[in-house]
Amino acid sequence: MEIKIMKNIMEANDRLAAENRALFRDRGMTAVNVMASPGSGKTSVIIQVIKSLGAEIDIGVIEGDIATNIDAETIGRLGIPVYQINTGGGCHLDANMIRMAVQNFTLKKRSLLLIENVGNLVCPSTFDLGEEYKLVIASVPEGHDKPYKYTSMFMAADVIILNKKDLMPYIDFDKDSFYKGVRAVNQKTHVFEISCRTGEGVQTFISWLRERVQEGM
Amino acid sequence: MEIKIMKNIMEANDRLAAENRALFRDRGMTAVNVMASPGSGKTSVIIQVIKSLGAEIDIGVIEGDIATNIDAETIGRLGIPVYQINTGGGCHLDANMIRMAVQNFTLKKRSLLLIENVGNLVCPSTFDLGEEYKLVIASVPEGHDKPYKYTSMFMAADVIILNKKDLMPYIDFDKDSFYKGVRAVNQKTHVFEISCRTGEGVQTFISWLRERVQEGM
Repeated sequence: MEIKIMKNIMEANDRLAAENRALFRDRGMTAVNVMASPGSGKTSVIIQVIKSLGAEIDIGVIEGDIATNIDAETIGRLGIPVYQINTGGGCHLDANMIRMAVQNFTLKKRSLLLIENVGNLVCPSTFDLGEEYKLVIASVPEGHDKPYKYTSMFMAADVIILNKKDLMPYIDFDKDSFYKGVRAVNQKTHVFEISCRTGEGVQTFISWLRERVQEGM
Repeated sequence: MEIKIMKNIMEANDRLAAENRALFRDRGMTAVNVMASPGSGKTSVIIQVIKSLGAEIDIGVIEGDIATNIDAETIGRLGIPVYQINTGGGCHLDANMIRMAVQNFTLKKRSLLLIENVGNLVCPSTFDLGEEYKLVIASVPEGHDKPYKYTSMFMAADVIILNKKDLMPYIDFDKDSFYKGVRAVNQKTHVFEISCRTGEGVQTFISWLRERVQEGM
């Protein structure tokens, strides 16, 4: 009974995600689903993208949060259109939430839609939003064993950011083990090592993202 | 329909949690439900507890993980009875899982049962396991805004550990803001600032825990 309902929910979600995907392509929007644990730097990465690409590319942001709009306010202050989704306790975004949110954006062709998911390394991985890219952010202080423990998330990732690189000297982080864990479940994904705090490595990721948005047309 | 099912699941869970609670009291076990984001230091805190109290108190550990047994192996090497629960993708433990797991322990009276939940700051907070104490671990690199964003978890906490205190000099962590966020949703909880890496503050928490186990009889 429960399993059947779960299957129905996933089927309904996949159908709506496919509609979102068609809509994004039709409108020339490159949608990126940003997923991570709480405090890994989702908002910080989005801010770096806005600061680097905001002048050349039309950017919109959907902020997923359980109950607050702290991050949406931060993004809004950068002069970027932002739409807040409060899940009301829910632990992930779904395709229907995105379908409703996206109606609020009037972006030009060749635009970038950044979707910040709820801070959670488990549940968001299984819900397709219709995005073009799933960006998973890991951070150095979380430890090198995360790809082994949260395989579904690292398996789903089209691109991975390893954030807070500046903390590497103060933490026992085994980089080889991290990469081995990533490659065990995902051979194709790009990994960018960055620090949003110092700016190190950020522009390499930005160049990759710029190309993806340009390709998107 | 969905809401009704959700309600039934929660009612069933609460009933089993009450049975677990009665069993724990009957057997003289103090059960602690350890919850946190991925990589905040749940296993590290459990290791500190075992090293400090393992000689004087009978300790058992239940390890909740999505698919692996990495943490259970780490704990097992310390010579402590450990039972692994793999949730198979599930994002939290529930009372029924604990009911089955607890049958595997033959601990003396005045014992301590540490339950490491799945790394997730959202879903585990609403599932009562029958534990005596909910221990929530936040860590400095996650940032001071977590109590504002994950209110349900910080509201549920009987005790909070702020871990990775040694990273404070390298991070923009506003301690006042953190405490204000905690106090806004939870006036009673204890907060212990520690570093599992350097050992700073650990013994203050251990003393608190030792007293709770002794009171438990």
